[in-house]
Amino acid sequence: MTNIQGIAASSGIAIAKAYQLVAPDLSFEKVKIDNPEEEVNRLNAALEISKQELEKIKAHTMEALGEEHAEIFSAHLLILGDPELINPMKDKITSENERAETALEQVSNMFIDMFNNMDNEYMRERAADIKDVSKRVMAHLLGVTFPDPALIDEEVIVIANDLTPSDTAQLNRQFVKGFATDVGGRTSHSAIMARSLEIPAIVGTKEITSIVKQNDTVIIDGLEGIVIVNPTEDELATYSEKQAAFAEQQAEWAKLKDEPTFSKDGEQVELVANIGTPEDVAGVINNGGEGVGLYRTEFLYMGKSELPTEDEQFEAYKSVLEQMGDKPVVVRTLDVGGDKELSYLNLPKEMNPFLGFRAIRFCLENEHVFRPQLRALLRASAYGNLKIMFPMIATLEEFRKAKAILLDEKENLTAEGVKVSDDIEVGIMVEIPSTAVIAKQFAKEVDFFSIGTNDLIQYTMAADRMNEQVSYLYQPYHPAILNLVNNVIEAAHSEGKWAGMCGEMAGDPIAIPLLLGLGLDEFSMSATSILPARTQIRDLSKHDLSSYKDTILSMGTAEEVVAFVNEKTSK
Amino acid sequence: MTNIQGIAASSGIAIAKAYQLVAPDLSFEKVKIDNPEEEVNRLNAALEISKQELEKIKAHTMEALGEEHAEIFSAHLLILGDPELINPMKDKITSENERAETALEQVSNMFIDMFNNMDNEYMRERAADIKDVSKRVMAHLLGVTFPDPALIDEEVIVIANDLTPSDTAQLNRQFVKGFATDVGGRTSHSAIMARSLEIPAIVGTKEITSIVKQNDTVIIDGLEGIVIVNPTEDELATYSEKQAAFAEQQAEWAKLKDEPTFSKDGEQVELVANIGTPEDVAGVINNGGEGVGLYRTEFLYMGKSELPTEDEQFEAYKSVLEQMGDKPVVVRTLDVGGDKELSYLNLPKEMNPFLGFRAIRFCLENEHVFRPQLRALLRASAYGNLKIMFPMIATLEEFRKAKAILLDEKENLTAEGVKVSDDIEVGIMVEIPSTAVIAKQFAKEVDFFSIGTNDLIQYTMAADRMNEQVSYLYQPYHPAILNLVNNVIEAAHSEGKWAGMCGEMAGDPIAIPLLLGLGLDEFSMSATSILPARTQIRDLSKHDLSSYKDTILSMGTAEEVVAFVNEKTSK
Repeated sequence: MTNIQGIAASSGIAIAKAYQLVAPDLSFEKVKIDNPEEEVNRLNAALEISKQELEKIKAHTMEALGEEHAEIFSAHLLILGDPELINPMKDKITSENERAETALEQVSNMFIDMFNNMDNEYMRERAADIKDVSKRVMAHLLGVTFPDPALIDEEVIVIANDLTPSDTAQLNRQFVKGFATDVGGRTSHSAIMARSLEIPAIVGTKEITSIVKQNDTVIIDGLEGIVIVNPTEDELATYSEKQAAFAEQQAEWAKLKDEPTFSKDGEQVELVANIGTPEDVAGVINNGGEGVGLYRTEFLYMGKSELPTEDEQFEAYKSVLEQMGDKPVVVRTLDVGGDKELSYLNLPKEMNPFLGFRAIRFCLENEHVFRPQLRALLRASAYGNLKIMFPMIATLEEFRKAKAILLDEKENLTAEGVKVSDDIEVGIMVEIPSTAVIAKQFAKEVDFFSIGTNDLIQYTMAADRMNEQVSYLYQPYHPAILNLVNNVIEAAHSEGKWAGMCGEMAGDPIAIPLLLGLGLDEFSMSATSILPARTQIRDLSKHDLSSYKDTILSMGTAEEVVAFVNEKTSK
Repeated sequence: MTNIQGIAASSGIAIAKAYQLVAPDLSFEKVKIDNPEEEVNRLNAALEISKQELEKIKAHTMEALGEEHAEIFSAHLLILGDPELINPMKDKITSENERAETALEQVSNMFIDMFNNMDNEYMRERAADIKDVSKRVMAHLLGVTFPDPALIDEEVIVIANDLTPSDTAQLNRQFVKGFATDVGGRTSHSAIMARSLEIPAIVGTKEITSIVKQNDTVIIDGLEGIVIVNPTEDELATYSEKQAAFAEQQAEWAKLKDEPTFSKDGEQVELVANIGTPEDVAGVINNGGEGVGLYRTEFLYMGKSELPTEDEQFEAYKSVLEQMGDKPVVVRTLDVGGDKELSYLNLPKEMNPFLGFRAIRFCLENEHVFRPQLRALLRASAYGNLKIMFPMIATLEEFRKAKAILLDEKENLTAEGVKVSDDIEVGIMVEIPSTAVIAKQFAKEVDFFSIGTNDLIQYTMAADRMNEQVSYLYQPYHPAILNLVNNVIEAAHSEGKWAGMCGEMAGDPIAIPLLLGLGLDEFSMSATSILPARTQIRDLSKHDLSSYKDTILSMGTAEEVVAFVNEKTSK
C-alpha cells in the first residue's frame, strides 16, 4: 500500500476501485495536403459535432449543478464560434496547405501560449479552456474516442492528471465517489466542482496517475488530503469506520441547519458565510448560514476586459440580498491590487505588492471605479439587510473619506428619487495592525469591525504567507494576534458596536474556543464549516473560556496557546 | 532669481559665486591605426601619468579627510592596474588596429554597462569608478586638461552635473563653500563627502548646470534643500542672517559636545549614534555621541565576492569598541535580505521582499554565516562595552534560538581559552508589530529593546515606504505607532530593562518631545543630529510631556498629534 499526500479539495471519505481517466492518443503526422476545401470541410464538421456535444454537456450540467457551473460551457461554445480563433486555422489550411489537425494544433497553441504568458490567473484559465475545446475537436478530426466519464456505470474513484471542466461536468455522482488528480489547487475548476458535487477530492498529488493502476483499490481521505492506494485490511476497516463516522457527523450537523448558534452556557453568536458570487448563496442557506459575513466583490471585476457597469453590480448585489431575505449581508468594497490584479485597471508593478497600492487606497484615488460600486450597493440596499465595509483601512482619514463619498452618493440617489435604505451599517475590515492597535478610536466612528485575519497576521508578523521560507511565521495563535483581536473586540463593545471576523481563522476549530472566549460576536467562514462550528460551539462554555483570557493573552508563544486550548477543551 | 529644489545632502548655508566645474571635451575620431606598438605605448603613458595623479590625490585626501575617503582612490588605482580591464584594450589595439582612445572607450563602456546592469548599488558604484578613471586616462590620451578643482583660489560654490570622488577629494575647503549637482541622492559619494567636509550641498536638482552660469551669485540652503540663483537684495540679506544664525547655533551646539543630556527638569537620557563602519566613530565623538546605538554590520558584508572572515569582523568590531572606550556600543547582527541583497549569498527572489526571508530569519537558517559573526563579536567584547541585538525578531522562539547559539559560541570560545566579556547585554530590535504588541512577554527575557521605527512603521501601516503611491501612510506620528512605542517602553521599565530607538524617528525634532514624554531611555540617530537634539531636550520638561501621554495616545490621527505637539512645545 502507498500513501500519497495531496491538497484536500473537498471533504469526506471515499473507498472504491480506481478508474483511470486516460487522455486519448491525439498524435498525427504533419503532412501537407492538396485539397484545402476538403480539409476546411473536415474542420467545420469537427467543430459542428463538438458544438453539439458541448450543448448537451451544458444542459446536463445546468440540471445537475446549476447555472454557474454551466457557464463554463457557454465559454467553450464561444471559443468554438470565435472567428479570431477559427479563421486563422482556415487560413493555414488554404494558404499553407496544412492539414486541419496541424492548423488546429498550431493556432490553438499560439493562443494557449499567449494566454499562459499573461501572468494572470484568469487568462491562464482561458488558456485551459481553449486546450479543453481543441482536444475535443482534435479527437473528432482524428476519429478517436474522447473519454466519456458519463459511461461510468459502477462505483469508482476517478484518477486523472487533471479534470477538465467538461470531464467534471459529466461525472455521475451516483457512481463517481471521489477523485484524485496530479495537478490543481484548492481554487482550480476541478476542486470547486468537487465541493459543489459534494464528493471527496484530492488535487495536486503530483504523481497519482503514475502510481495508481486501473482497478486498484483506492481510499480518498478528503479530510486529511491523503490518497491510500491498495490499503491493507486494517486500513480498509479503519477508513470504513472513519467514513461511517463522517456520515453520522454530517447527519448530526444537518440537524442544526435551522438552529441559532448558542454556547453550552446559553450565549449566542452568529455564524455567517464568506461568498464570492450570488450563486454561492444557495450553499450558505443549505449549510445553515445566519447571513453573509463577507461578500467579496472582486469576482464581478474579474474575467472581464473592462469595469462592470453599475447596473451589472446592482443586479448581483440585489440578487444576494433578496436571496438572503432579512438576514445580514456584509459586502466588502473592491479589494484589488496586491495579489489580485485586473489588467484593465493598469495597476502599477510594485516591489512589495502586499504593502502597496490596493483596496481602499486604490479606490480613494479612483473614484470613477469606487462611486459606481457604492451607487450599486446603495440602490440594492432597498432589497435586504445590507452592511458595507471598506477593506485595508489604515487611518481614520481613509475611513472618513470613504464614508463621505458613500454619503455623497446616497444624497445623489435620493435626489434622483431612488429608494435607499436608511439602516445601512458602515464598517471596516481590521486587517492592518495600526487599525487594530487604535480600534478604540475607530469604534467611535464605525458601525462594526470585521477582522480580516489573513492579512492581519501577515502584517503583524511581517511575513508573506505565500513565501514558503517564512510561512512558519504565519501564526494565527501567536499571542500578539490574540491581543490585537481582543483589543478590537473590547473597543467595539465599549462603544456598543459588534465585532466579527472573516479570515480563515474564524472557522478554525482551534481558534473558535479562543475567539468565543474573547467575545467575538460574528464568525464568518466557508459555508461548509458552519455546521461543524455550530456543533463545536454548543459544547463550549463561553463563560469558562472568558475566564482564561488574561492567562492566554500574557502567554509568550503560539505553542503555549495551542497546548492550553487543547488541554482546556479536551473531554 | 530662480529657486531650484534638490535633495539636502549636507546642512548649512553658503553664499558665493558659481564655479561651473565643466567636463572637458573628450570626443575623438574613431580612425584605424597602423602602428599598434606606438598606440600601446601611448596608452601605457596615459595610464602611468593617471596613476601618478591618483597617488597624489590619494595622499591629499588621506591628509584632508582620512583613510576611509582615501580608500576610493585605492580602488581607482586597482582599476588602472587591472589586467582584466587593460589587456582587452591592448588586444583591441593590436588585433583590431583601433587607436588607444577607441580601445579605452569600448572596453570601459563594456564593463560600465555590465556593472550598471547588475541591479546592485555596490556594482553601480564600481561602474562609476571605472567611468571616473577612464575619463582621466582619456584626457591624457587626448592632451586636454582634466578639470582641477584644486586650482580654485577664491570663494565659490561648485556647480556640476555630478562630482566624482576625485573631484570632491580635490575641493579645497578654504575656497569651496558648497556645491550643487544635477544628479545624486543622500547616499551618493558626493553627498557623503560633503557631510565629511562639513560644507552645505544640494544634490539631485536635475537641472542646476543648465540654469546656473559661471559667476552667477548662488545661495545653497542645505537645511531646506534649495538653491537660489541670482538672489534679490532682500533674499541676500535674509540668507546672510540665516547663515549667521546657523553659525551661531552650531557654536551653541558645540558647547554641549561633552555634556550629558538632561531635560529642563533634570531627567537624563542618552543620545547615541547610528554607524556603519569603524571610520564613522570619529564623527560620533566629534558630535558628542554618548555611545553607538546601532552599528549596522552589513557594510562588512557588502562590496565583496564572499563572506568576510571571522578575523576581519573581529578587527572591525574591536576597532569600534576601542575607539568608544567605556561608552556603550550596540551591534546589530547581520540584517540582509529585503532591499539589502548580497550576491554571494544567493538569496531567493521574493514576491514581497519586505515580508520575506531576511535578517534573523536568514541567520537562524544559515549558521555558517551567523556563528562567525557571533564569535567575532564575542572575541571583540573584551575590548569595550559591547551590547548585541538581533534584528527582525517576530517570536520569542527566534530570540531564544539566536541567544542559544550565542551562548554556545561563548562556551566554545571560553573552552578555547579566549577571553570573552561576562557583561554583554543581549537585546532585540523591535521592528515587527507582533513583538511590539507582546513586548511585556519579551521584556522578561531580553536585556534591552531598540525600536527600529523605519520597519515598524511600514509593517504597522502595511505600506512600503519606498512606494510613492502609499508613502503617505508612512506616518511616524500615527497614534498606533505611538501606542506601540509606549507599550515597548512600559514593558521594558516594568522589568527593569531599558528601551532605545534607532530609527530615523529618534532624531526627528517633532518626535523627540513625544518620545521623551513616553519615557524613551536612549535615542540613536545620525551623529550630526546629536547636538541639535541635546539642545532641544534641554528646553523640554519630561514631566510636562509625560502628563500629556494619555491624551496623545487616545488621539485618532497623526495630524492631531502633530498639532498638539507643536502647540505644547512652541514658545
